Amino acid sequence: MLFLTLLSFNSLHFCSLSLSLSLSLSLSLSLSLSLSLSPLKLVNALGSRTLARPSPGELSAQSHGAVLNTDGEVELDAMIMEGRTLAAGAVSSVRNIANPTNHVMLTGRGANLFAESIGVPTLPTQALVSEQERNQWEHYKHYDVAIKEYFNARWPSDTVGAVALDCCGNVACATSTGGIRNKMVGRVGDSPIIGSGGYADNEKGAVSCTGHGESVLKVTLARLILSHMDRGTPVSAAVEQSLRYMAVRVHGAGGAIAVSPSREWAARFTTERMAWAAIDGDLLHYGLNPQEEFKEPLI
Amino acid sequence: MLFLTLLSFNSLHFCSLSLSLSLSLSLSLSLSLSLSLSPLKLVNALGSRTLARPSPGELSAQSHGAVLNTDGEVELDAMIMEGRTLAAGAVSSVRNIANPTNHVMLTGRGANLFAESIGVPTLPTQALVSEQERNQWEHYKHYDVAIKEYFNARWPSDTVGAVALDCCGNVACATSTGGIRNKMVGRVGDSPIIGSGGYADNEKGAVSCTGHGESVLKVTLARLILSHMDRGTPVSAAVEQSLRYMAVRVHGAGGAIAVSPSREWAARFTTERMAWAAIDGDLLHYGLNPQEEFKEPLI
Repeated sequence: MLFLTLLSFNSLHFCSLSLSLSLSLSLSLSLSLSLSLSPLKLVNALGSRTLARPSPGELSAQSHGAVLNTDGEVELDAMIMEGRTLAAGAVSSVRNIANPTNHVMLTGRGANLFAESIGVPTLPTQALVSEQERNQWEHYKHYDVAIKEYFNARWPSDTVGAVALDCCGNVACATSTGGIRNKMVGRVGDSPIIGSGGYADNEKGAVSCTGHGESVLKVTLARLILSHMDRGTPVSAAVEQSLRYMAVRVHGAGGAIAVSPSREWAARFTTERMAWAAIDGDLLHYGLNPQEEFKEPLI
Repeated sequence: MLFLTLLSFNSLHFCSLSLSLSLSLSLSLSLSLSLSLSPLKLVNALGSRTLARPSPGELSAQSHGAVLNTDGEVELDAMIMEGRTLAAGAVSSVRNIANPTNHVMLTGRGANLFAESIGVPTLPTQALVSEQERNQWEHYKHYDVAIKEYFNARWPSDTVGAVALDCCGNVACATSTGGIRNKMVGRVGDSPIIGSGGYADNEKGAVSCTGHGESVLKVTLARLILSHMDRGTPVSAAVEQSLRYMAVRVHGAGGAIAVSPSREWAARFTTERMAWAAIDGDLLHYGLNPQEEFKEPLI
């Protein structure tokens, strides 16, 4: 059992909370995974954990506290995929749902209608927005400014990603985001796009990405990393080469976590920081700054 | 200058009209391409032609006559990409617009708001629906039936795709669709997804795909074909291998057109039929059934 998660976030003081959340998330996920009887259940478990709603104020990543678009609304994107059958699900631009769900690829009103049909509760927008996000939204009214400040300077937007390898060699990935603050209404980034925000294939491995969505889309980053791995490139080199290619070819920064079927894994980024954590056997690995890796035994 | 187009359609009697449309479309595109001064203009030209609105009743592919979703509404998906800078644009689930346009990836209401902001006219749904489509919609009320009958038996849905290579070695692709009849509201197939419905990269080539959207998404078909081409596989073998892989791995049928930077091209499909046409120099190539290729000199 191997599990990796990434979190990109808006405010540095959320770091420790993010890491502790990812740790608890990892542990519950590990449990879910080891209990799962089929890859589909694995995906469902991965989905429900990755898309889990933190308590209000706890984390600026998903659902409550997500970034606001130009209309001051919350629109969420997410994808999930398992590598045995390539079963996948994605939603884009869903609104007023604390925990988006997955089916086939659905967008906007249709995704909301589907969520309603299976009993997912909706909430008024203001119940999903933190005061801090409302203040930041007022500050960063211009999308171009937001891109410059977030993606190619300090840290990217509020994305949560996860990849996992279970004891039977099944891999899975999930990526979920609120996008970038002051994005155009209906803007879709890389997160819900299979092959860009994530990809999972038992024959190659699993990847989850974050960063400047338009750049990740243009190079289909997850698929690019896996194509390097498929040619025998070590996982860390495959991620590094792909991120470097994205920087040179389309001038975009980002990060990714990846795991191979042979249990090799890596977490790399070209943004200034990216919070990540990995559980490999009885050891927790985690980091925030470049070349940083702390290790702690799991209790 | 090299240009290929594919059309998948709902009724066989549209075949000759489709082919003649693709021919006239090709010729105007060739003109636009040869006049284009930059890859961006090339993309715009490709987009405006691929998304061109046929006269009512002429073709069941785009805009007027597109298939209806479960609500009896028209929702269109499209993507476009050029291979020099990897600039790309996509829309999904746009409504009541005769000719969708491209920006960054936009979906649903946001895409419609953007279209409105740049003066694209909207039309009532009934103005976009042919009587034939309304009748077919009543007949095929169940999505599962539609998938079975369209994708893995006779022919796929109403997609238009195009790839082109200009004299400077720039490639581009575009794919546009109404999806599959009786699709769920908000369902997004492969067509607007960069790497699945199409991909263009001057270093590798350009691909446009059609077929069972969910299957194409799971194998990121366009990117898969290009990864084979990138390893030196001849274009026709790359397309055939990828379609075969999609059939075996996720049981989906489809088709694709591809062009390499060295002017190699192919049109292949695993559906029963796919209308395609190519202009290579002064020669028009076209076909409908497997292994069928007619050649005619261009006048």
